Amino acid sequence: MPSVSVVGGSGYIGQEILRLVAQHPTLELKVVTSRQHDGQKISKVLPHLAGFVQGSFTGDLSKAGDADLVFVSTPHGSSFPLVKEFLAGGSKVIELGGDYRLKEEGAYERWYSHKHEDPANLAKAVYGLPELNRDLIKKAELVANPGCYATAATLALAPVVKKNLVATHSPLIIDAKSGVSGAGKEATEFTHYPNVAGNVLPYKIGKHRHAPEIQETLASLAPRSSAPSVIFTPHLVPVVRGILTTSYAPLAHGVGISAVQESFAKTYSGCAFVRLQEETPSMQQVVGSNVCAISANIVESLGGNAPTLVVVSSIDNLIKGGAGQAVQNANLMLGLKEEAGLLTPALGV
Amino acid sequence: MPSVSVVGGSGYIGQEILRLVAQHPTLELKVVTSRQHDGQKISKVLPHLAGFVQGSFTGDLSKAGDADLVFVSTPHGSSFPLVKEFLAGGSKVIELGGDYRLKEEGAYERWYSHKHEDPANLAKAVYGLPELNRDLIKKAELVANPGCYATAATLALAPVVKKNLVATHSPLIIDAKSGVSGAGKEATEFTHYPNVAGNVLPYKIGKHRHAPEIQETLASLAPRSSAPSVIFTPHLVPVVRGILTTSYAPLAHGVGISAVQESFAKTYSGCAFVRLQEETPSMQQVVGSNVCAISANIVESLGGNAPTLVVVSSIDNLIKGGAGQAVQNANLMLGLKEEAGLLTPALGV
Amino acid sequence: MPSVSVVGGSGYIGQEILRLVAQHPTLELKVVTSRQHDGQKISKVLPHLAGFVQGSFTGDLSKAGDADLVFVSTPHGSSFPLVKEFLAGGSKVIELGGDYRLKEEGAYERWYSHKHEDPANLAKAVYGLPELNRDLIKKAELVANPGCYATAATLALAPVVKKNLVATHSPLIIDAKSGVSGAGKEATEFTHYPNVAGNVLPYKIGKHRHAPEIQETLASLAPRSSAPSVIFTPHLVPVVRGILTTSYAPLAHGVGISAVQESFAKTYSGCAFVRLQEETPSMQQVVGSNVCAISANIVESLGGNAPTLVVVSSIDNLIKGGAGQAVQNANLMLGLKEEAGLLTPALGV
Amino acid sequence: MPSVSVVGGSGYIGQEILRLVAQHPTLELKVVTSRQHDGQKISKVLPHLAGFVQGSFTGDLSKAGDADLVFVSTPHGSSFPLVKEFLAGGSKVIELGGDYRLKEEGAYERWYSHKHEDPANLAKAVYGLPELNRDLIKKAELVANPGCYATAATLALAPVVKKNLVATHSPLIIDAKSGVSGAGKEATEFTHYPNVAGNVLPYKIGKHRHAPEIQETLASLAPRSSAPSVIFTPHLVPVVRGILTTSYAPLAHGVGISAVQESFAKTYSGCAFVRLQEETPSMQQVVGSNVCAISANIVESLGGNAPTLVVVSSIDNLIKGGAGQAVQNANLMLGLKEEAGLLTPALGV
Repeated sequence: MPSVSVVGGSGYIGQEILRLVAQHPTLELKVVTSRQHDGQKISKVLPHLAGFVQGSFTGDLSKAGDADLVFVSTPHGSSFPLVKEFLAGGSKVIELGGDYRLKEEGAYERWYSHKHEDPANLAKAVYGLPELNRDLIKKAELVANPGCYATAATLALAPVVKKNLVATHSPLIIDAKSGVSGAGKEATEFTHYPNVAGNVLPYKIGKHRHAPEIQETLASLAPRSSAPSVIFTPHLVPVVRGILTTSYAPLAHGVGISAVQESFAKTYSGCAFVRLQEETPSMQQVVGSNVCAISANIVESLGGNAPTLVVVSSIDNLIKGGAGQAVQNANLMLGLKEEAGLLTPALGV
Repeated sequence: MPSVSVVGGSGYIGQEILRLVAQHPTLELKVVTSRQHDGQKISKVLPHLAGFVQGSFTGDLSKAGDADLVFVSTPHGSSFPLVKEFLAGGSKVIELGGDYRLKEEGAYERWYSHKHEDPANLAKAVYGLPELNRDLIKKAELVANPGCYATAATLALAPVVKKNLVATHSPLIIDAKSGVSGAGKEATEFTHYPNVAGNVLPYKIGKHRHAPEIQETLASLAPRSSAPSVIFTPHLVPVVRGILTTSYAPLAHGVGISAVQESFAKTYSGCAFVRLQEETPSMQQVVGSNVCAISANIVESLGGNAPTLVVVSSIDNLIKGGAGQAVQNANLMLGLKEEAGLLTPALGV
Repeated sequence: MPSVSVVGGSGYIGQEILRLVAQHPTLELKVVTSRQHDGQKISKVLPHLAGFVQGSFTGDLSKAGDADLVFVSTPHGSSFPLVKEFLAGGSKVIELGGDYRLKEEGAYERWYSHKHEDPANLAKAVYGLPELNRDLIKKAELVANPGCYATAATLALAPVVKKNLVATHSPLIIDAKSGVSGAGKEATEFTHYPNVAGNVLPYKIGKHRHAPEIQETLASLAPRSSAPSVIFTPHLVPVVRGILTTSYAPLAHGVGISAVQESFAKTYSGCAFVRLQEETPSMQQVVGSNVCAISANIVESLGGNAPTLVVVSSIDNLIKGGAGQAVQNANLMLGLKEEAGLLTPALGV
Repeated sequence: MPSVSVVGGSGYIGQEILRLVAQHPTLELKVVTSRQHDGQKISKVLPHLAGFVQGSFTGDLSKAGDADLVFVSTPHGSSFPLVKEFLAGGSKVIELGGDYRLKEEGAYERWYSHKHEDPANLAKAVYGLPELNRDLIKKAELVANPGCYATAATLALAPVVKKNLVATHSPLIIDAKSGVSGAGKEATEFTHYPNVAGNVLPYKIGKHRHAPEIQETLASLAPRSSAPSVIFTPHLVPVVRGILTTSYAPLAHGVGISAVQESFAKTYSGCAFVRLQEETPSMQQVVGSNVCAISANIVESLGGNAPTLVVVSSIDNLIKGGAGQAVQNANLMLGLKEEAGLLTPALGV
């Protein structure tokens, strides 16, 4: 049985990996690290996993290297030495903190306020969106697990960008709504219950790190000279899990709904976790699952402009937007069935 | 003391008018109607008003005409005979159900699925957005109280449209998020708690009635030949009160943030209920008050297109988006101070 | 592979059985009925199950009898002919609507407002709380699946009642808090989002049907002449899934915490789904799982009375309080491993 | 016009006092202190008050003494020197942090983990529950504003204790549910949105500081030798504002519902902010107002014990449970109408 370790196992993404691995038919859990909870029982720190996950956290991160694959889920900017060490030791690595997502090395300084400290591995890292990069992921030693917003938005727009169905005179506008677990486990003013409940809060307008991630991926798919522009606005909504994005794209001349739907059907043919729907997705239809639900509509402008493509996509930010996608990538990297351990339906309510 | 009646006093907008009138320094409450609760004590049907509002509902709607001004808050399509009757009887009327909002008579068939049954009064009706139409409202006999979404979106975009600061090559995109009270008091699948909690639900994409209302008002403000197009997408969010709109507008060549802010400052000079902010608005900053909070940002597109104007506005949908705006209009129509009874701050948390 | 059918498959409990059966290693799904959705695809009516459950609803309820076991999840008072028919046809039956829970035939008139129409089978029905009745369930043809509140409250109090650790001079007080899915799928004023959000609502004080169910079970466990009295107060809280009960019991003279804990440890020895905790349970620790988490505390009264036992228990009302418990019962009745298909941890957040 | 200052004006109770004073017809706001926000505009720190409250916070707490009355809303254990200083300077004082609530000096060590540092003023402090202590409050120099839970629970039980209608063989059981704003403005793990949403969380079972406060007040009302015992269990519920308590009391022999209701009617005769209801209260009926809604039921025990009195009460924890009660006390201490500035109905939804 292939073995995996989790570095940063007490954060939301880390604990979700533990939950998924506990239900996985073949993955063996080796080492789970947490500096904060060094030596504590996992079931004590994460009571919802009591009876399902055995063992204790260790604060010795190097131990994690004793596994076929290591999930590295640490705060951005902190993974470089770990990734180098685990790769050098022969483990495969999935990095979840954003340190290997952007291909352009200079972008880290602009968006993450620090230089990239491992450009050699950055050059080899594969962006872990299996629906777009499946074959590369299968052969990768290092996978950069996508951001949660980026997963939902990129899956919503990739088909029409790839097939050159959008006009480029105006930007793609992505209006995204996220549950609070996306902000992580640490209590802050931003996650304080009375500040979130009964509220909707746009934030980091034009400044969120997932914007360049989306833009870079879409640009890589677009035909030469048709790279789209992106405007991305995240909103915090009073929900624990779930991301929903509403994306607005100007259509290229003469493009109708059938061309749009064909682009989606072709791009996601054979993808178990993308669900193309007539019905507009909502968070509830996907929370608890690894599914990304997508619907596309063409809306006439009131007033005379050309019609606009409106694509709605929704995911569970901790699963398809994080831990589930990581397990999906691990399955591919370890030669397992892509869907292994992930065929759990959404809770529904 | 000027007197008012409320037709449809047991719905969310109606009961909110009762709550506001109870705190108003000069308005006298005459008749409150409800067919469903004919003869029942108001305090029994609306326990939160016990001790604050006396009297009973009557099912005899005509009685409401015995007041200087009548708030008519009935389902759309049902107000025509009432409005005619009250106007003929010498009362001023504020209609809140959407029956007199669109100037173009034909639009009712397209958006409301019925013919307009009172074109004579429609021609005289004034659109009740005091920040844009204050002087007309003062002299009006009949005011059409704006839709909740339309209030938030129109206030967000009117200044830049009026001053011709937006380009017209692409539509204005309005992505709106609303609390559930906007769907009214009747329990439906759409408002069933387990369907809403933990969820975000886009609906009526390209088909919501407030879209033509917004488009018509903005078009009326725009310089000739610059009428903007509108794309409007409403989302249900798990919140009781509050609307937040995020609007995206292409800027006309050379327009910068100072021109934008000047347009807002000028348009809303002297308006007690519009709060222009540097800080991005959230619902919490306005819920419980008659305030519309607005902030404007210019965001660089990632990828090469011209910058985009992103305006965020937020209101309490039942107050500035309904009952509060109606009382504001009533104050103007009755010669009272515009702010009378409405200077209540938001709850904050 | 043993086969099961679901009568009433579109309600919350029914759809949850479908979700669990879809993840079950051996159960085969035969027929799913819904009068309301006769002929419609399951994946259309329940979009969160698209890709996980195939087939359509049938309105022909009798077809369900073509299975080894039938889950009957219809409104109370409506199951009698169905249960008779399926039992006569040789299927085992789990009834989830409350029609076979109370042993005392006369109680149905008092608490359910109708006579029991199948006293013969009522006499044979086994109350389906596996932790108390495992051996009887294994041999049963008909199991009455317990009420959601009754499951949480009975598991919290059974050990100390059975071991005679509580005094009988005052009643056991059970203060219960439930999420809204317990009220079912039909939209009503009681489940209207604006009535529930930001609210806590006690209801049916002293009149809820789960009260006699709890009382009857506890009385059956108590030593002769020590049958406890029960006061039960349910509260609706703004949560979708989850029940938490806080139970207050007067302790028999001289009983301390170790005797209490021993009674719990013994009663639930070998029970995979009861988790005895030091830490006080919360809904979050169990929602998404079939676990009932329980903690017991002895609290000194301020003012002079004897100490009071305070037991907190929590379950997912749709799983351990409904569908999960039904699958657990089905496993026992069909000779499968009790835990089959149910070893899913809670979501945590 | 009488003047007031607020020490600790940026916490939830402090900002709520500012909101209420802004709507008060006669109180003049003098000084608002906040060490954390020294020199910052109030409208910047509390954007929901922009346009309603002028001026800046000062970090110089002594300045607050320049007012007829000072609201001292600082963390418990920190008010002693301030209270001494303001009283010595001739201001009246309302202390809201719990430092003067318990009459028994020794109780502070047990429940608050520190000695009382101002026993002289403690002896003179009046417990600020106007419905029980109105005349003493009118003459008081120092008022201890009650705890939020204590307000709701004490008002629910005082009448029947005072009139000796409860038996003393078992304790009064108070099961309380509170919104998260009661935990204060500081972000902690306990108030982290993902830990609260979709959850109910009992905490500090048998250890909450409001328990001795309730017990002491009820004991002071009870006839000699009938002092009741109290068991108090607080629960955190996913609500921002609101407390609801469900109290269970054993009835004295022969006591029926009419004696109970008479005790309530007499105790609260003339009290504008206590609303005795037939309908069971819910948080929604009071949130946004200074009202305490109460209903009483007598419930037969299932199984043979004597009937139990079940009293439900609900308040807005920040208003009647804090700032509103403080303003009510201030009105009495300053010779104003008790209801001045507080006759605002609940929001309803």
